[in-house]
Amino acid sequence: MGKDIMLRDEFLYQQIADGIESQILSGVVAAGDKLPSVRVLSKEQGVSVSTVLQAFYHLESKGLIESRPQSGYYVRFNGARQPLLPSKSYPQAIPQDIDAEDMIQRVFQNMHDTSFVHLEVGVPAPELLPLAKLAKGVTGAVRTLDAGGTCYENLQGNLNLRKQIARWSVMWNGRLTPDDIVTTSGCMNSLSYALLAVTERGDTIAVESPIYLGILQLAKSLGLKVLELPTDPVTGIEVEALKAALERNKINACLVVTNFSNPTGSCIPDENKKHIVELLEKHQIPLIEDDLYGDVYFSPSRPKSCKTYDESGIVLWCGSVSKTLAPGYRVGWIAPGKYLDKVKKLKLYHTVATTTLTHEVVANFLENGRYEHHLRKLRQVLHGNSLRFIQAIGDHFPEGTKVTCPRGGFMLWVELNKGIDTYELHRRLNQEKISIAPGRMFTLQDQYTHCMRLSYGMKWTPEVEAALQKVGRHASKMA
Amino acid sequence: MGKDIMLRDEFLYQQIADGIESQILSGVVAAGDKLPSVRVLSKEQGVSVSTVLQAFYHLESKGLIESRPQSGYYVRFNGARQPLLPSKSYPQAIPQDIDAEDMIQRVFQNMHDTSFVHLEVGVPAPELLPLAKLAKGVTGAVRTLDAGGTCYENLQGNLNLRKQIARWSVMWNGRLTPDDIVTTSGCMNSLSYALLAVTERGDTIAVESPIYLGILQLAKSLGLKVLELPTDPVTGIEVEALKAALERNKINACLVVTNFSNPTGSCIPDENKKHIVELLEKHQIPLIEDDLYGDVYFSPSRPKSCKTYDESGIVLWCGSVSKTLAPGYRVGWIAPGKYLDKVKKLKLYHTVATTTLTHEVVANFLENGRYEHHLRKLRQVLHGNSLRFIQAIGDHFPEGTKVTCPRGGFMLWVELNKGIDTYELHRRLNQEKISIAPGRMFTLQDQYTHCMRLSYGMKWTPEVEAALQKVGRHASKMA
Repeated sequence: MGKDIMLRDEFLYQQIADGIESQILSGVVAAGDKLPSVRVLSKEQGVSVSTVLQAFYHLESKGLIESRPQSGYYVRFNGARQPLLPSKSYPQAIPQDIDAEDMIQRVFQNMHDTSFVHLEVGVPAPELLPLAKLAKGVTGAVRTLDAGGTCYENLQGNLNLRKQIARWSVMWNGRLTPDDIVTTSGCMNSLSYALLAVTERGDTIAVESPIYLGILQLAKSLGLKVLELPTDPVTGIEVEALKAALERNKINACLVVTNFSNPTGSCIPDENKKHIVELLEKHQIPLIEDDLYGDVYFSPSRPKSCKTYDESGIVLWCGSVSKTLAPGYRVGWIAPGKYLDKVKKLKLYHTVATTTLTHEVVANFLENGRYEHHLRKLRQVLHGNSLRFIQAIGDHFPEGTKVTCPRGGFMLWVELNKGIDTYELHRRLNQEKISIAPGRMFTLQDQYTHCMRLSYGMKWTPEVEAALQKVGRHASKMA
Repeated sequence: MGKDIMLRDEFLYQQIADGIESQILSGVVAAGDKLPSVRVLSKEQGVSVSTVLQAFYHLESKGLIESRPQSGYYVRFNGARQPLLPSKSYPQAIPQDIDAEDMIQRVFQNMHDTSFVHLEVGVPAPELLPLAKLAKGVTGAVRTLDAGGTCYENLQGNLNLRKQIARWSVMWNGRLTPDDIVTTSGCMNSLSYALLAVTERGDTIAVESPIYLGILQLAKSLGLKVLELPTDPVTGIEVEALKAALERNKINACLVVTNFSNPTGSCIPDENKKHIVELLEKHQIPLIEDDLYGDVYFSPSRPKSCKTYDESGIVLWCGSVSKTLAPGYRVGWIAPGKYLDKVKKLKLYHTVATTTLTHEVVANFLENGRYEHHLRKLRQVLHGNSLRFIQAIGDHFPEGTKVTCPRGGFMLWVELNKGIDTYELHRRLNQEKISIAPGRMFTLQDQYTHCMRLSYGMKWTPEVEAALQKVGRHASKMA
């Protein structure tokens, strides 16, 4: 009973917060506007004062409002000054292969230099991770595991970890069982097995565009051709474009980051996911679904996955904790549908097994609810960061700059005016110990040279804000 | 100075022990013979009594001699009753592909059943591993690593680990530097990158025969043809056969377990290694060298590797600690010669990085000398086991049984009389909770059906001895 009331309250404060948030984001209330007092709102909405306060704290932690002593709460985020969204992408309709290896190597060469402000990296900063609890988890796992974790684990993967992933899949109507899942050494490792399972050298895969550079590199190393498809910065890969491509080209597999894609932050609407699966089922083409950001949603509930709509086992659903918990643990997984046996064998043949110790630590973390607790905090921090980034970009970047407004993940896609070369911008910013990811790295075509990806997966500090100011200043000089 | 004397003494007792050992193994002194007294030997050899005693303890721990109270030391191992060596292999001279997947799955299905005596597995039993020290190493590494090991490590691999592997390579004149080495998730993972780097689907690789089944499976999953070559149970792959094959066939790469191969335990003489490298250099064909047992030698010094003789970078040298320290840690490495850049990229694209935590634990273990200390003990235990196994096989297996006498590693290859089907033997032994590895699993041809691999990588106990008796009894019934 007590729990029910708590859940109800949580729901109430969230509802109130969401209502105010949407007014702020849409510019209905502007920066500097005073919010109704706690007392007034409490009466108006028929909820307790503490529920209203909880809603205000929540909005404050996201950087949307601020309290002024002896005065009340004021809007801080300026919805009206929010930049426009970037345009839809229109890559070439035939596979190309103009790689950007040199650029990629140069951009990531200072990745481990702690004197830099790293806006280019695709991993959460350590200060956002539950390090003490993880350390305790490691010590515990060494104690409880057979032979301290020195033995090979179950070849399909840690059974408890697979149970927990299956349990979590309820969140997106996944209906997975532990037997459907194979654990891997991270999500790229899952994608590698998926591609090895369903493609051969010379095959063509269809992907969104821009797309995570690691996927382009992996495809290339396997001798695959990459067909980049038109993609919307909000709703992701265009279903109609995919449909046309399937009819026009010989496509052997489709690979999409469905939720909060890297680099744009786009999220395919659930309705479109359903269409995509139906379309691929019709053509009997496997869909490799990279869903490693799905749990980092800012809306009240998790988006579905394409796997949710998979009736015939054509979806190979991939995930990991590398973007949310511990990149260095190398813990990922794949639910390969009808390719299960193939993937199990690939894992056995190519690496025998995954790391016993770290997989057990993550299994325990999921089981005892620590992961859920951590994710709740992480989502709030990242959502706040995303709004602060967008605001800073509106304030400091040159007129005409466009930026995505992701509802999850930790990447923003920024589109500058056509003339501004973001690789040159990167070079100039490196002098100031700031690193960004030029847009050209996320395609095999000659495009996105005026775009960049910014990661907001760190603690928001005056240094980060100053860095964004400098990015804006340098970009303005180049405009 | 003190250290020099210690080393000198160690050398002396070893020399004396080796002398007696070779007399025992060759049957010059027979089981039951009394050895000269400690006093006599000490005078005769001009060494201290304690040095002689040390030599005796060493031989006793290997099961070669035993002390009888108030009487002295007696020979225990019966060199004269040692079975003959198996015959050289003569596989078909064209690649074949009759796989044994079903058999392999059935044989390993009880792998994790602790009520079994496991003579079929290829990993050391936990009781041979330094578990307490490793557990301490994990706790220490969590404390000292950046963010407790949750971050990605250096993409080429843990620098200290690469330093230690380079340092160790001096043992076999390897002259490696940390920059030459890429760490991996175990030796199979190294082989996977090696094959991806130097072959394409449809290519042919030349290998020894019998050969480790994992290599056959990996090759098959990459669409490679496997040419099995004649192999000697003592000296490994036949150089002349390789030479002829290179002239006759289109071979794209050669893959050999050079030291104490799995399954036969054969070790290619250093002179032959040199020839093999020269031969492959002449034909400009890469050699993938699987050297994961090289450090588990029973002779006074480590055999060389093919990499020792590699002048032009054609050897991709692979190793791991999975067979000596901690299979579940997933720590391996590769020194890919001129394919370094390719392998670095493959690692990055297919798994991003290896597990930060366990790689640091192993790096520390190597650095502080614990690994060397552990290996010294492990070698002695395994050598003793190998001799006890051979003796038990001589005692209990049917007349005409042949067995290898490996000088390292932990595998024996047993050749029964032609009529005895070891897969059927495996089935019968399963009823008795004993598991063996039928020879047919180690080839893609219709051969070795009367052979089996036995692992002696466990603690020698009355149960193990009883299990070997049962294997012998069942085999005799089938003869």
